[in-house]
Amino acid sequence: MPTTLITGGTVVSSTGRGPADVLIDGETIVAVLTPGSTLLGHDLAASVDSVIDATGKYVIPGGIDAHTHMQLPFGGTSASDTFETGTRAAAWGGTTTIVDFAVQRQGERVEDGLAAWHALAAGECAVDYGFHQIIGGVDEHSLAALPTLIDEGITSFKMFMAYPGVFYADDAQILKAMQVSADTGLLTMMHAENGPVIDVLAEQLVKAGNTDPFFHGKARVWQAEEEATHRAIMLSNITGAPLYVVHVSAKQAVEQLAWARDKGQNVFGETCPQYLYLSLEEHLGAKSEEWGSFEGAKYVCSTPLRSRAEGHQDHMWQALRTNDLQMVSTDHCPFCMKDQKELGRGDFRAIPNGIGSVEHRLDLMYQGVVTGEITLERWVELTSTTPARMFGMYGKKGVIAPGADADVVIYDPNGHTSIGYEKTHHMNMDHSAWEGFEIDGHVDTVLSRGKVIVDDGAYLGRKGDGRFVKRGLSQYLI
Amino acid sequence: MPTTLITGGTVVSSTGRGPADVLIDGETIVAVLTPGSTLLGHDLAASVDSVIDATGKYVIPGGIDAHTHMQLPFGGTSASDTFETGTRAAAWGGTTTIVDFAVQRQGERVEDGLAAWHALAAGECAVDYGFHQIIGGVDEHSLAALPTLIDEGITSFKMFMAYPGVFYADDAQILKAMQVSADTGLLTMMHAENGPVIDVLAEQLVKAGNTDPFFHGKARVWQAEEEATHRAIMLSNITGAPLYVVHVSAKQAVEQLAWARDKGQNVFGETCPQYLYLSLEEHLGAKSEEWGSFEGAKYVCSTPLRSRAEGHQDHMWQALRTNDLQMVSTDHCPFCMKDQKELGRGDFRAIPNGIGSVEHRLDLMYQGVVTGEITLERWVELTSTTPARMFGMYGKKGVIAPGADADVVIYDPNGHTSIGYEKTHHMNMDHSAWEGFEIDGHVDTVLSRGKVIVDDGAYLGRKGDGRFVKRGLSQYLI
Amino acid sequence: MPTTLITGGTVVSSTGRGPADVLIDGETIVAVLTPGSTLLGHDLAASVDSVIDATGKYVIPGGIDAHTHMQLPFGGTSASDTFETGTRAAAWGGTTTIVDFAVQRQGERVEDGLAAWHALAAGECAVDYGFHQIIGGVDEHSLAALPTLIDEGITSFKMFMAYPGVFYADDAQILKAMQVSADTGLLTMMHAENGPVIDVLAEQLVKAGNTDPFFHGKARVWQAEEEATHRAIMLSNITGAPLYVVHVSAKQAVEQLAWARDKGQNVFGETCPQYLYLSLEEHLGAKSEEWGSFEGAKYVCSTPLRSRAEGHQDHMWQALRTNDLQMVSTDHCPFCMKDQKELGRGDFRAIPNGIGSVEHRLDLMYQGVVTGEITLERWVELTSTTPARMFGMYGKKGVIAPGADADVVIYDPNGHTSIGYEKTHHMNMDHSAWEGFEIDGHVDTVLSRGKVIVDDGAYLGRKGDGRFVKRGLSQYLI
Amino acid sequence: MPTTLITGGTVVSSTGRGPADVLIDGETIVAVLTPGSTLLGHDLAASVDSVIDATGKYVIPGGIDAHTHMQLPFGGTSASDTFETGTRAAAWGGTTTIVDFAVQRQGERVEDGLAAWHALAAGECAVDYGFHQIIGGVDEHSLAALPTLIDEGITSFKMFMAYPGVFYADDAQILKAMQVSADTGLLTMMHAENGPVIDVLAEQLVKAGNTDPFFHGKARVWQAEEEATHRAIMLSNITGAPLYVVHVSAKQAVEQLAWARDKGQNVFGETCPQYLYLSLEEHLGAKSEEWGSFEGAKYVCSTPLRSRAEGHQDHMWQALRTNDLQMVSTDHCPFCMKDQKELGRGDFRAIPNGIGSVEHRLDLMYQGVVTGEITLERWVELTSTTPARMFGMYGKKGVIAPGADADVVIYDPNGHTSIGYEKTHHMNMDHSAWEGFEIDGHVDTVLSRGKVIVDDGAYLGRKGDGRFVKRGLSQYLI
Repeated sequence: MPTTLITGGTVVSSTGRGPADVLIDGETIVAVLTPGSTLLGHDLAASVDSVIDATGKYVIPGGIDAHTHMQLPFGGTSASDTFETGTRAAAWGGTTTIVDFAVQRQGERVEDGLAAWHALAAGECAVDYGFHQIIGGVDEHSLAALPTLIDEGITSFKMFMAYPGVFYADDAQILKAMQVSADTGLLTMMHAENGPVIDVLAEQLVKAGNTDPFFHGKARVWQAEEEATHRAIMLSNITGAPLYVVHVSAKQAVEQLAWARDKGQNVFGETCPQYLYLSLEEHLGAKSEEWGSFEGAKYVCSTPLRSRAEGHQDHMWQALRTNDLQMVSTDHCPFCMKDQKELGRGDFRAIPNGIGSVEHRLDLMYQGVVTGEITLERWVELTSTTPARMFGMYGKKGVIAPGADADVVIYDPNGHTSIGYEKTHHMNMDHSAWEGFEIDGHVDTVLSRGKVIVDDGAYLGRKGDGRFVKRGLSQYLI
Repeated sequence: MPTTLITGGTVVSSTGRGPADVLIDGETIVAVLTPGSTLLGHDLAASVDSVIDATGKYVIPGGIDAHTHMQLPFGGTSASDTFETGTRAAAWGGTTTIVDFAVQRQGERVEDGLAAWHALAAGECAVDYGFHQIIGGVDEHSLAALPTLIDEGITSFKMFMAYPGVFYADDAQILKAMQVSADTGLLTMMHAENGPVIDVLAEQLVKAGNTDPFFHGKARVWQAEEEATHRAIMLSNITGAPLYVVHVSAKQAVEQLAWARDKGQNVFGETCPQYLYLSLEEHLGAKSEEWGSFEGAKYVCSTPLRSRAEGHQDHMWQALRTNDLQMVSTDHCPFCMKDQKELGRGDFRAIPNGIGSVEHRLDLMYQGVVTGEITLERWVELTSTTPARMFGMYGKKGVIAPGADADVVIYDPNGHTSIGYEKTHHMNMDHSAWEGFEIDGHVDTVLSRGKVIVDDGAYLGRKGDGRFVKRGLSQYLI
Repeated sequence: MPTTLITGGTVVSSTGRGPADVLIDGETIVAVLTPGSTLLGHDLAASVDSVIDATGKYVIPGGIDAHTHMQLPFGGTSASDTFETGTRAAAWGGTTTIVDFAVQRQGERVEDGLAAWHALAAGECAVDYGFHQIIGGVDEHSLAALPTLIDEGITSFKMFMAYPGVFYADDAQILKAMQVSADTGLLTMMHAENGPVIDVLAEQLVKAGNTDPFFHGKARVWQAEEEATHRAIMLSNITGAPLYVVHVSAKQAVEQLAWARDKGQNVFGETCPQYLYLSLEEHLGAKSEEWGSFEGAKYVCSTPLRSRAEGHQDHMWQALRTNDLQMVSTDHCPFCMKDQKELGRGDFRAIPNGIGSVEHRLDLMYQGVVTGEITLERWVELTSTTPARMFGMYGKKGVIAPGADADVVIYDPNGHTSIGYEKTHHMNMDHSAWEGFEIDGHVDTVLSRGKVIVDDGAYLGRKGDGRFVKRGLSQYLI
Repeated sequence: MPTTLITGGTVVSSTGRGPADVLIDGETIVAVLTPGSTLLGHDLAASVDSVIDATGKYVIPGGIDAHTHMQLPFGGTSASDTFETGTRAAAWGGTTTIVDFAVQRQGERVEDGLAAWHALAAGECAVDYGFHQIIGGVDEHSLAALPTLIDEGITSFKMFMAYPGVFYADDAQILKAMQVSADTGLLTMMHAENGPVIDVLAEQLVKAGNTDPFFHGKARVWQAEEEATHRAIMLSNITGAPLYVVHVSAKQAVEQLAWARDKGQNVFGETCPQYLYLSLEEHLGAKSEEWGSFEGAKYVCSTPLRSRAEGHQDHMWQALRTNDLQMVSTDHCPFCMKDQKELGRGDFRAIPNGIGSVEHRLDLMYQGVVTGEITLERWVELTSTTPARMFGMYGKKGVIAPGADADVVIYDPNGHTSIGYEKTHHMNMDHSAWEGFEIDGHVDTVLSRGKVIVDDGAYLGRKGDGRFVKRGLSQYLI
């Protein structure tokens, strides 16, 4: 097995940073050492197959994006990134593990849904991948299947308080599933928006002729998110189930999470780059000549972009600092404008929901380090260490330590990255919500289990490099 | 320089645990490696001067007790542990770094106070030591001296909202000192109890004939702690000074800290083992034949032990889990009953305040792991990693990583420790507040900068082993 | 029209008390005067048809019980008090107005439901009565009917978040109805318990063999009430509808109400005597020889009695003092043990829900004055003035003032009342949840629109005395 | 004694409104009657000495301004209104009772301070007046004197957490005084600002050359008010003393009050018109040609005007609606620009603190009814009924009821009032902070104990009309 030594860099963990060399043997990190390439007189650099010079750069554990939706069927079309294109884009951006969502729908067997997703991903991925399980139909069969997922390495499942008639679970169903969660240690993930309420408001808006993308954001009021978050917390309180709320965007929802955490509940939340940088006013309401007032469709996602005037974005950054939110995922769910987002011309409800960001998460969050929103250590914690712990991969993933998979990113704080479709991103999308974002840093080199898959602006991997990750139970619970 | 390999153990960090060997060269950890003692074909075990077998045991960074008062003059006597006896007891208990408090009093020069403490500690200590600076007299001279402390490696200073006429600082003084704190990055530490209010209540109790130790706890009402905590938070809010509240014992004070942290302030708190395990009813109110009703004097400390019926102890554990409290220190301030605590017979106000715990912190907190109050990783974080980060020592201290001082504890989860004076503790005290506590674990081996100072029930170090640690600014601020 | 002068008493209002005479002309109070029976030289006492001596007694506005369910069909039986028996019992207890609930069920016309209740009550009542409208089936027809209720004098309607399959309204339905509420000023009343969740828990308990009445209380966890309360508050926040939560029993629900009110929402709550005096442990869990472990069925109501150990009862009293709860109603819904409560032997879910208290509310609340829980003025406010204002009757009801209906109670603070079935209450029930309660006061005389209907232990009225009260919009909104 | 009948008006109380006639015999209201001027056949209008036609107008209890400082010595000068001029201006504005502050200073006897204020007021006042007692020097003598005040009709005393060296009381002093308050029922009033902190900030601003009036507002940061409010609440919690916080202006202080009240403490707060209408940016920062940048001095008061951008004003209105604040007083403390405010040219600390509003309170608050901030009933409650209850005058004052003093205002909602010095106000000031305020209502007629003292734009009273009011203990405590 080839050996590699990364020398001269600054290894960054969630608690600190310092100069250290990293020795890789095959797919695994076997040592972290004081710099200098000798150990007890042995010249390591001379002993290894290759040496990577990381002088002046950060050496960090590969990014983990715990929320992606490759090729997800949604609203009569499918997310435009396949596992092949999506994970390759992830690799370009320094993300070496994704956790995607296998889907079980009402009336389907959980096993079948999971098998279908395995079939989609197997042999296609550029980086390692795991699955959460969406339970779109909670019934006695799916409840019975839940515990069996643990042996499959699927240790978390998601339910939806939104999307009545599609993935929606009612409170009785959620309660029963949470009882299984509490009994088994499976982590309950929740899309926390009151779907029935939103659907009424959306219908009323459309009836009144308010059909532009902007009204997607108006229909999905913050109260619907706050309320569902509180409800999920209380159901978690009744059952004892650990709860992880996905894509938190409303400051009032964060206040509910903070309240529950102050009382000692195992309640967690992620946010996404779009809720930190983009806003209802500036983006969802955007107009341009090219797309007319429909351009806002690029920014249609759920939960929606929120009003900057109301301070949601600032509050999300604060919550990342205070650990009232623990992680940043992307909710990568890409749709092209052509033939996809366009389905919603004349009725925002038909716009496929989603923004593509899997390639940009590490960069966008690093910019938060540059602007002083978060520390360098917190950057690593939010994008890799906590995702690994939260979803039962820590030890293998999320840390630069002996025994860990050699998923390593060499990040240059003196580099620069220009984001956007015009700048030729690698996601399968005909536009970018991130057009024009400039980052004061750059993903130079990416190793996935010891293999260099991105280096110096070139993709060196191939599809099938990525393997399925069997995950254990959450390592983050208190 | 001698080399050592610790093999076969489970290295525990604040984020996870895993099998790893630790290679030490002289005083420093030079590598953390996959177990097996070979690296790229080199037989490390054969190359080192000594091998320590840690099979079945935890390998953790040496404990850091950030709150001790060796030989502190207080109430007409002095704390009974010298730097020699106190740090040796610390070593026995797996604590390899203490941060003690140098004292400047009203009218004294800060430099002189610091020099005096250096003189007391130099050449005496069994383990490494740093200093915080007590500012007992805030005036233009001491304010001017504060920034100069940074070059001395003193990056935190403590003020007292209690003890009028002794160390007490009024709000105007605190504000001015916090302005320096905000400008320089020095961390403001605070004894947050409303001293003037407590003194009135104490005087009224004594006048009414309530002179037993129990009334020490009755006089120091939780409201006095809650109020001062809130006040310190607001002064921190005005100035922007980072704030660290020492020895938090009231649940209502924790609620204030959580409230401030939820709003994004750099506000932190420590608690101590006595506030987790001991109580007003059971301990401060204790009576025995030997000491009569005065036995409670053993448990007189400030902040005081709180009522178990009111739930303070449970809330402290919860706050440790939720990170509303970040650390556990001891506030080690030992006094013998004979000739010391006895000074307060007939008037609890004359009882020297303090409990001795420097030897037992790691064990007492590990018992919290056994009983499920905290995780193994949180144990390491609370007792070593966060103290190192909070007080600017991380990298050298608080972590098992290359480049770090080889301060390492090998802890046996299958061992057992019986605590108490009768069991012959090593602190210079004629009693123990912890008499009879049984711990399901044991400190087997302690290394301080690569030297084994405790092993197999023997103390192998000597006074003067410990060196002064120049600390940097806090690495924990958001 | 006969004239009456009440002399010598202390008139109590919600803001104060003082000596005053009350002059009644026919059905109406025409003057409140300084005592002495002369006015500008006219000897009033000599001019009136009758004089009532209230010396040493309180003269208060007749009680208003805004939550009763006479002859309500529920669970295969009907509440055991008819409008005749129930309102007569109310009169005995000093309640001169009730507001009962007309019922519209799924698929029925609101007009028909209302007409049915008018038919039940007309000509039967001992005291005045109004109606709220239960909307058991929210659909386009019932929504369209809502605004028409205002002209009928029905200015409030109730929905249920509990009882799926019976009265249950889902969030989409509630939202739509609240939009009507906000547009018209109709007050939204809410039974705030998460019914779907409770039904799951109840079913699981029964399946596990836990069928006794006690488990009614265990199934209806406080979290289900807290959650629904929060949800109702948020739906109110979205729509702007004023919200009145009925029969609040969990302290955590009160905390939600207080939170919403601190933010300025028009959110209100009532509690009932049973949530102040009775408890899960002592009453719902009660066992006796007569009824076996089934005796707790007497205390089965929803929301349920709560645990005294958890402090709910104390918190309800506090909330009455702090105005976080604004009113005390009874939720009078009587069922006999024989043939009614007994239906639930072997399955607590089949026990008709309800406690009978319409006769005892004024007395039970007056005992809170005696024990110092509330002031005398607050007693009047909670039982009469605020109910009148909340439900649009103030001016005619709820106050001793010229122009008001002469609904007056003369209450003797030196009297005594023994409550209970054994003591021959006047409700149509074969038991009493209040057996053995002793009150240090007594309802001496009751006037309903100028007519003495109770005096000196005799009922002097007759059925049909009571008239329907057309209510206006709430006079309590901010 | 002359008799008067007020006919045709709408009597407004704190709970409702309705048509009623008011019959006055001498100084006292003797009856409130249904309109029409006949009672049991007697023609009242023909029987009385005078009839006042209030058709189309509101008949309300005379205003009570519970916070004035006539001729207060402050900062080397004295408030510019004497008891004569100030109470006459009050009468013009419909305020028929003031409660002014007698002053005891450090080293003085309380009795002497009180006697001095009696001497100032006796025979001078246009309307009735009471006193609170300022305790500027808390020591054993003043503490001993406190209980004796009750017999003097002084049932409330004020301390200052601001103004070190002048009125300042430290926490030990406050605690002791609050113990007396709790024991006796005397109400503790508090100026809640952290004076020592403010003095440091003010000195630093002046040293930096920031001497304009605007910096008065910058020095008195909201945190200083929030902190002191919390501290006062906790001292109240320790002692059980009822607490009334004067001139609340910071929304964060209101949040503290609401928090304490939600927990059931007897804690109250008043705000003043200036905190509802005026702001730091627009008024304290105002510049004009006449006064140069010093014009802001008109608006210098303590607590200071707050930033509108931060939302304090909106929050004060909300708190008045939610009863988190219970009353509106003026803190009337007038100083002329010439020779008085001018003292602070070049150093804002030397500007006498105070705004004159005693004449405008009823009008300014009525405008809040017009704009929908508060209801008509709440207007009466905030300006008359609650002040009467809070300070032990209810029954005699604060209500239109038999037995009450005939302090009555006839307010025309169709009238108009233009406020300002230019419009010739009646306060002894050479400017007005309220210049240009227009009110959609008018004080038409004012009766003080039965005597018409203002009518149709004419002042008909004379100095000495007003009598000292001996107050009882607070009637507002829970």
